[in-house]
Amino acid sequence: MGTDTAIKQALFIGIDGGGSKCKATIVDADNNILGSGVAGPANPFHGFEQATDSIVASARLALSDAGLSLSEMPRLIAGIGLAGVNLPSLMSKMKQWQHPFKQLFLTTDLNIACLGAHNGEDGAILITGTGSCGYSNIDGDEFFIGGHGFPHGDKGSGAWTGLEAVSYVLRSLDGLEVDSLMNQQMLDKLQCSNFLELIEVVAKKPANFYASLAYIAFDAAKKNDPLALSIVQDGADYMSAVANKLWANNPQRMSLIGGLTPVIMPYLEPTIAARLSQLKSPPEIGAVIFAKQQLDCSL
Amino acid sequence: MGTDTAIKQALFIGIDGGGSKCKATIVDADNNILGSGVAGPANPFHGFEQATDSIVASARLALSDAGLSLSEMPRLIAGIGLAGVNLPSLMSKMKQWQHPFKQLFLTTDLNIACLGAHNGEDGAILITGTGSCGYSNIDGDEFFIGGHGFPHGDKGSGAWTGLEAVSYVLRSLDGLEVDSLMNQQMLDKLQCSNFLELIEVVAKKPANFYASLAYIAFDAAKKNDPLALSIVQDGADYMSAVANKLWANNPQRMSLIGGLTPVIMPYLEPTIAARLSQLKSPPEIGAVIFAKQQLDCSL
Repeated sequence: MGTDTAIKQALFIGIDGGGSKCKATIVDADNNILGSGVAGPANPFHGFEQATDSIVASARLALSDAGLSLSEMPRLIAGIGLAGVNLPSLMSKMKQWQHPFKQLFLTTDLNIACLGAHNGEDGAILITGTGSCGYSNIDGDEFFIGGHGFPHGDKGSGAWTGLEAVSYVLRSLDGLEVDSLMNQQMLDKLQCSNFLELIEVVAKKPANFYASLAYIAFDAAKKNDPLALSIVQDGADYMSAVANKLWANNPQRMSLIGGLTPVIMPYLEPTIAARLSQLKSPPEIGAVIFAKQQLDCSL
Repeated sequence: MGTDTAIKQALFIGIDGGGSKCKATIVDADNNILGSGVAGPANPFHGFEQATDSIVASARLALSDAGLSLSEMPRLIAGIGLAGVNLPSLMSKMKQWQHPFKQLFLTTDLNIACLGAHNGEDGAILITGTGSCGYSNIDGDEFFIGGHGFPHGDKGSGAWTGLEAVSYVLRSLDGLEVDSLMNQQMLDKLQCSNFLELIEVVAKKPANFYASLAYIAFDAAKKNDPLALSIVQDGADYMSAVANKLWANNPQRMSLIGGLTPVIMPYLEPTIAARLSQLKSPPEIGAVIFAKQQLDCSL
């Protein structure tokens, strides 16, 4: 059997590992989608074991969804995008992982999102989900901006918005900021009857906990709550500044990706918002595109 | 032996457990200081085992400093002030602790700091060390403000200042904020040669790590660095607002306590700064005052 025939019979799995969940999609050589699966968080920065466990769990679910046996796992050629693997220490740790796939091509979550958004063509992306950042890939030159992590960075993200909201609410309940619609919403959402309970509930929580509270700020901002508006506008201004830095690289297209996309859009600079292009494919298909590009290179 | 004689022969230990260290001082019934000891962090919110270990370690060091045998530990009547024990869950957990002392009287770090600052009299305190908050105790009525914890609260504290500084520096190094004197200082202090190394070093660090970086912002603010000034002034404005809330309770005196005291003072509202009184005793002596007050109540 020649190499071409082998590739035509190959199965690919594209995996998008994020701070909140890990999505896997299995496709054949002609990009027909056979099945998908979603598992838990897969940010190796927040736990290496959890990330690799979530990758395998999402792959098992995708195999099952595709009507394939788990014993087919070693047939899969995997493209995986993960947060943080631009950091040398995490990349080398991931490379030592005894993965269950036939081959594994690893890159950043940003690269697969960008490849998906522009169907393998050059372009830029703005991401705001649990975390936030900007990325462009033009003629093979990668450019990263933001994405510094939680709690010190990722401005404009869900985690940042939730953290700011909790911080303002606590000060507002203390009478150190004006009253806010967010106050009661936050207490209700976290099933707290008072201020001290709220302090206990939010203690030592990770980024995805805070990201789950971001909607409270966006809901209140829509009702013109001044505190919520100041948080949301501050985050959106930062994302607009990131977009302006990305446009300086002259990408052909730019897309906005991530869970906050619909809610943050109205707060971006109008010229930035107007120039954003629709996504062509989701990041997990971008991961498949990456694996196929790497395979082409290696032949 | 009568109760009075027993108390006259008693030894007291006052313990101030904070986010960075735990200080213990042994005094006799006449408040003569016999010895002191300092051990590691003792904030039960950030680790119950570590807190109780630090308490015992500081007591051992104080016994040794006083020239007393460790076998005298069960003679000590302890007054302990700890962060977070105003939260019911932490107070009940601490109460279940099998402590090594003759008796243990437990209260908040705020109460012992206030008792020390005003030598057992009523008053108010502003604290800004690793964390921040305000507290007053007037006719037995305790009033707490701020102190919400890290990373969502404790504005104006060392941890908050350090976190803001790291956050600004990362955005500044990305070209999303103006250049700052803090950038190179931060890279040097954390022995990072670039931006990616800095992201790795600061990942998942606790409050006291960030508190150790606060001086970078204060140093740069002194040199009129605009980014550093905006952080320091924002924190100080918050502390001034906390002070104004405390003055509304009409305390006789107010003192500023904690590691940032000398550096934050110049940025407080001048009227607030002018009304602050010198500390009469440190918090660990406040803890002894608390134990003696409780013992008087129980006789």
